[in-house]
Amino acid sequence: MKESALQIAHRAYQPKMPIALRGEVCLKEGERTQSVADQEAIKQLFPDTYGLPVVEIQAATAQAAKPARNVGVILSGGQAPGGHNVISGLFDGLKRMNPDSRLYGFLGGPSGLIEGKYTELTADIIDQYRNTGGFDIIGSGRTKLEETWQFDKGIEVCNRLGITAIVIIGGDDSNTNACVLAEYYLQKQCGIQVIGCPKTIDGDLKNKMIETSFGFDTACKVYSELIGNIQRDANSAKKYWHFIRLMGRSASHIALECALQTQPNITIISEEVEAQKMTLGDIVDDIARVVAQRAAKGLNFGTVLVPEGLIEFIPAMRALIQELNDLLADGKEFDVNGLRDDAKRLYQSLPEAIAKQLTMDRDPHGNVQVSLIETEKLLIEMVGKRLAEMKANGEYTGKFATQHHFFGYEGRCAVPSNFDADYCYSLGQTAAQLIQAGKTGYMAIVRNLTRPAEEWTAGGVPVTMMMNMERRNGKMKPVIQKALVDLNGKPYRYLVAHRDEWALSTDTYIFPGPIQYYGPAEVCDQPTVTLKLEHE
Amino acid sequence: MKESALQIAHRAYQPKMPIALRGEVCLKEGERTQSVADQEAIKQLFPDTYGLPVVEIQAATAQAAKPARNVGVILSGGQAPGGHNVISGLFDGLKRMNPDSRLYGFLGGPSGLIEGKYTELTADIIDQYRNTGGFDIIGSGRTKLEETWQFDKGIEVCNRLGITAIVIIGGDDSNTNACVLAEYYLQKQCGIQVIGCPKTIDGDLKNKMIETSFGFDTACKVYSELIGNIQRDANSAKKYWHFIRLMGRSASHIALECALQTQPNITIISEEVEAQKMTLGDIVDDIARVVAQRAAKGLNFGTVLVPEGLIEFIPAMRALIQELNDLLADGKEFDVNGLRDDAKRLYQSLPEAIAKQLTMDRDPHGNVQVSLIETEKLLIEMVGKRLAEMKANGEYTGKFATQHHFFGYEGRCAVPSNFDADYCYSLGQTAAQLIQAGKTGYMAIVRNLTRPAEEWTAGGVPVTMMMNMERRNGKMKPVIQKALVDLNGKPYRYLVAHRDEWALSTDTYIFPGPIQYYGPAEVCDQPTVTLKLEHE
Repeated sequence: MKESALQIAHRAYQPKMPIALRGEVCLKEGERTQSVADQEAIKQLFPDTYGLPVVEIQAATAQAAKPARNVGVILSGGQAPGGHNVISGLFDGLKRMNPDSRLYGFLGGPSGLIEGKYTELTADIIDQYRNTGGFDIIGSGRTKLEETWQFDKGIEVCNRLGITAIVIIGGDDSNTNACVLAEYYLQKQCGIQVIGCPKTIDGDLKNKMIETSFGFDTACKVYSELIGNIQRDANSAKKYWHFIRLMGRSASHIALECALQTQPNITIISEEVEAQKMTLGDIVDDIARVVAQRAAKGLNFGTVLVPEGLIEFIPAMRALIQELNDLLADGKEFDVNGLRDDAKRLYQSLPEAIAKQLTMDRDPHGNVQVSLIETEKLLIEMVGKRLAEMKANGEYTGKFATQHHFFGYEGRCAVPSNFDADYCYSLGQTAAQLIQAGKTGYMAIVRNLTRPAEEWTAGGVPVTMMMNMERRNGKMKPVIQKALVDLNGKPYRYLVAHRDEWALSTDTYIFPGPIQYYGPAEVCDQPTVTLKLEHE
Repeated sequence: MKESALQIAHRAYQPKMPIALRGEVCLKEGERTQSVADQEAIKQLFPDTYGLPVVEIQAATAQAAKPARNVGVILSGGQAPGGHNVISGLFDGLKRMNPDSRLYGFLGGPSGLIEGKYTELTADIIDQYRNTGGFDIIGSGRTKLEETWQFDKGIEVCNRLGITAIVIIGGDDSNTNACVLAEYYLQKQCGIQVIGCPKTIDGDLKNKMIETSFGFDTACKVYSELIGNIQRDANSAKKYWHFIRLMGRSASHIALECALQTQPNITIISEEVEAQKMTLGDIVDDIARVVAQRAAKGLNFGTVLVPEGLIEFIPAMRALIQELNDLLADGKEFDVNGLRDDAKRLYQSLPEAIAKQLTMDRDPHGNVQVSLIETEKLLIEMVGKRLAEMKANGEYTGKFATQHHFFGYEGRCAVPSNFDADYCYSLGQTAAQLIQAGKTGYMAIVRNLTRPAEEWTAGGVPVTMMMNMERRNGKMKPVIQKALVDLNGKPYRYLVAHRDEWALSTDTYIFPGPIQYYGPAEVCDQPTVTLKLEHE
C-alpha cells in the first residue's frame, strides 16, 4: 500500500492531552442535574439516567489494579475529522488501565451492533489510523438505534463478546439514542454501559456543557483555506463574483465560522433570515445592493457565503417545499395548479433549473431533497436578473460575471487539525475513564478548549441534562437540543459589527492557507474563531 | 488589516536557492541554438534573437560594481502560485547588485505597459507579499502584446521611467510575445531588454529546457488534497461515485499529476482519448464497465478524474462544437437542422442541460465556451443511462449515487508550496542576473529540480529555441510548442501500468493531505510526481 509523505510522518504525532488524563485519575462528582427543559417528561422517560451528576476527571495518586474490560465502539452518521483519534484515545486509555482489555469496532455504523458485524481493533490496526481523517477504520452508517428489538439484539452480541460498555460516536440524534439505550440497559440490568462522544462538522451539537463538537474545527479550516484561495483569486483577477455554498445542514455555524476566518464580502446566516422573516427577494436585493455598491467603486468581484440550509429558513420557501412534499407524495405527478396562490407565484418566479430540482429530486418518501438544491446558482440567477433591472433604471453600471462552488465532501474526512486530533484523542481517553468508573448515559466532554491542551478539563455530562421535548414526525420526543446560530452570541455579533466594512472593502480578505500540522503553535494549534469568541 | 497566523508567520520564510545564485556570478555561454522546428521561418522572423546560446549561471569571485538598473515587471494571464516570489526574487536580485536599482510593476497585466499604469515596488510592498499566493501585488491581465503600436507605447513609457529591461511572467503565448517584443526592441535599438519567466498551473509550458512551469506544483497539490479528502469520504461512506473535473485547459497534466498523487479509480486523459479516436460513448462505456465491476465486488463508490479540456479531444465533439460555432456566429438563432447528420445525431444524444450549455453560453465572438461545459455532469448523466441499460440486461446490479465537483479557482492562488516558493524566487533572481548580463529574448530557467534546491542550476534559454510555426486563427505564427501529455512519457505510462489495479481496488487510494510549509523535508519539499518520473 502506497502512502503520502504526510500519511507516513503524521502517524507519529502524539496528541496533546489535559494533565488530568495523563496518569492515575479519580472522578469528582458534582450536584444532581436537571434537563434544560421539560424536566418532568424527561425524568419519566429516563428514570434511571435522569438527574445524574456532572463528573470531572482529576489527577489522583496510584490506585488499585483495574479489571480488563471488553468495549465496543460505533461510528454513527456523517464523517467528521478526528473520529479515528477518538478510537485511538479510547484504545490507549483502555490498554493503559489493563493491557488485557479489548476494543471491538462495530462495522458500518449502529447496524453493526444489531447484526453482530464487528472487528477487534488491535494495536496494528489502530496504529494505521492514528491522526488520519475519515471513518474508514470501521465505517459509519445511519441506522437509528430506536427500537427494543435492536437493543435486545445488541445485548446478545455484547454478551457473546463479553462487551460491557459501548461507545457511540455521533451527533445529537445518535447521542439521544445512546441515552435511550443506556436507560434500557440499566433497566434490564444487563451490565452494559453506554457512553457518547460529540461528533459533527455542522457545529450544532453544543451547549452549556459541550463547547464544540469534534470535526467542526477541521472542516471549517479546510473550507476557509479554499475560500481564502478563491478570495485571493478574485482579488487578483478582479472579474468574478464567487458564490460559495457550504455544508452544515440547518445551522449556519460553518458559514459563520468561515466568514470569521476569511472576511468575505457577503455572508448569509439562515437564522437571521428566519428571525427577520426575509423573503428570497429580500436576500436577492441585499446581495444586488452590495454588488452595485462595489461596482460603483470599480470592484466587479467579490465573495458570497451561502449556508446549505438557507432555503428552509425562508418562510415562504419552507411553505412551498411543504406544499410540494404533500403534492408529490407517493409518486404523484406534478401539477403547478395544485399549489396555493402564494406558493404558485413563488414557484413560478424561480429559475427553471431550480424549479426542476424542487419537483424532480425527491427522496424515497417523496420529499424534496433540500441539500441537493443548488442555492448558490439560484441566487446567481436571481441577482443577475435584479441587476439587469437596476441597470435599466440607471442604478447599476458594472459587470456581473460569476463562479459557483459547493464545499462539503472536501472537509468531512480531512486529516484532523491538531486541535481536533488532540480534542478527539482526549475524548477517547475520557470515555475510557468513564467506562472504568462504571458510568452510563453520559457523554465524554473536554472543556476549556481555548486554553493550551494541558489546561483542558475532562469529564462526563449526563445526556438527560441536555434534553428537552420536541415534536418529531408529529410525535413529542426527548432530544438533545440542537444549537442553531445564536443571534445574541458573540460570533454572530462580531459578523454584524464588521460586515458592512467587509462588504465594500478592497483589503479585508483574510487568507488562512491550508491546515498546518508542524510549525509555530500560533499557526498549528488554534481553535476556531467561534470557540474563541464564545469562551475567551 | 487583519491577517491569518500563516500569513504572518510565513512571510519570514527564506526561499532556498541554488548555490550558484547566492553570491557573485558569471554567465557561461553554450553553443548557438536552433529552434525545435521550422528553423528557416523562425530565423527570418527573429533575425536578432535567433540562434542565441543557452547560458548557465555559475559562481564567480568578486566582481566590479554593477550599475543601477530600472526594471519593469508584468504578470500576464491566469494566476499561478509563486508569482509574488518571482517578483521578490527579482527585487532582491536587483537590489543586491545595486541598491539604487528600481523595480516598477505594470498594473493589470500587459495593458499596464501600454497605458503607462505602474507602481514602484518598494521594500515595504515586496515584504507584504513574500511567499503569498495570488497576483494581487500588481494584478494580471490578458491583453496580448502583439502589435507595433503597443510596442512603441511601451518604449515611451519605459523611457519616461528610465526602464531598460522588462520581465514578463506568463505562459507560452505571453513568452512568445515577449520574444517578439525583444526582437522589435533590438531592431529598434531602443535599449530595452525583455526576459520571460515560465508560468502556468496547467503544466503545458515545458520542454527540453524547461522542466516545469511554476504554479503547477502548488495547484496540483491543492487539488490532490481535496481529491484525497473526497476519497477518504467515499471509502468511509461507501455510497457515492465522485466525478471531479479539474482545471488545466487543453492538456491533461493536472489530471495526470493528481492521479499519480491520489490513485483514483478512473482517470481520463484527453490526449489518450484523441489518440485512440474515442467517442463520448466509448468513454461512457469504459466508466460504466468499472462501475459495474466495482459493484460486483460490493463497492458502489469511487472517484473519476475528468480533465477540463476533454470535450475538445473527442473528435466527434470537436466537430460538433466547430459546426455550432459556425452556426451560431454573429448571434444567429440556433436551429438543430442546421447541423450535419452526424453532428445532429450526437447533439440530440446529449443530456438536455449540456446541449443547452453548448448553444447558450457563447463568448463575444459567438464561440462555445468549452470551459463552462460541466463535463462531469454530462458523464454522470450518460453513465447513469448506460448503467440502467446494463441493469435491464442483467449486467449490473449496483447503486449509482453521485456527487460532482470542479476544482480550479481553489488552486490558482494558493499559498505557494515550498517548491514553488523556492523555484519562483530562484527564477526571479535568475531574471535579475540575465538583465545584468545584458540578455534579451531569453527566458529564465532553473533546472535539476528533483534535487535539493542548493543543487539546482540556473540560467537562460533563448525563446526562439523553443519555437515552431503553428496555424493560429488561419495564419501561420511562430509560437512556443505547447506540451500536451506525452503518451510515451513515464508519468502517463505509470498511470497505464497501474490503473487497472486502482480501478477495482479497495485500498490503493492515497491521501496527500494539505500542503505543509513546516516539518520534515519529505513532507514539505517534494516536487510533483510528474517531475520525479520525468527527471529522476
